[in-house]
Amino acid sequence: MTEPDSLLSEIRFDARGLVPAIAQQHDSGEVLMMAWMNADSIRATLAEGRACYWSRSRGALWRKGETSGHVQRLVELRLDCDGDTLLLLVEQSGPACHTGRRSCFYRAMRDGALATIAEPVAGGS
Amino acid sequence: MTEPDSLLSEIRFDARGLVPAIAQQHDSGEVLMMAWMNADSIRATLAEGRACYWSRSRGALWRKGETSGHVQRLVELRLDCDGDTLLLLVEQSGPACHTGRRSCFYRAMRDGALATIAEPVAGGS
Repeated sequence: MTEPDSLLSEIRFDARGLVPAIAQQHDSGEVLMMAWMNADSIRATLAEGRACYWSRSRGALWRKGETSGHVQRLVELRLDCDGDTLLLLVEQSGPACHTGRRSCFYRAMRDGALATIAEPVAGGS
Repeated sequence: MTEPDSLLSEIRFDARGLVPAIAQQHDSGEVLMMAWMNADSIRATLAEGRACYWSRSRGALWRKGETSGHVQRLVELRLDCDGDTLLLLVEQSGPACHTGRRSCFYRAMRDGALATIAEPVAGGS
């Protein structure tokens, strides 16, 4: 069995053929974003050593950072107990979020309201 | 606007009325699990200060740790840029995973195959 197949056979894709994937900065532990993968994007991620998602809005493979340069180099790919969620440990170049923030999770409930807790970072990696 | 409503109005629930929620140990950064929430479970989580999910298999609220004692005390609730994923920073009592492991993400691709990288922990918190 090839490398991707040994993983793909353990994944429980949803009815759309997708599985949620959490991207986490491998050394700091910061959760950067959550996106979706299908079998093809998982094969591409393993083959290329960089996160490649499935864009639900565009209906196409989404090589993270292909236009922005904010690539996520794959450090390790993990699978949860019931096989329906992936965790990607990555080395994130620059911001993960399209708003220019390091993480997409920049809003937090504080004092009973949603507060912005991070600002866009300057420049690249 | 009440506390839950100020959050709920920013969340983009899917067609089932659900949103994925990532649970992360607040101090170590370890990603523990991913589960689903609906509006009621979010209200319960905020009101009770502990993670309460929506069990898709049982079609009912799932107060994490209600039977096992392995409660997730809520430290902070965050929302991502496009409002379709939650990140819960929690204080996890004991294991998060039903297998007895601290995290559900205990399988990793290593040397081209899925390897088990964590064992069940002994006892409680």
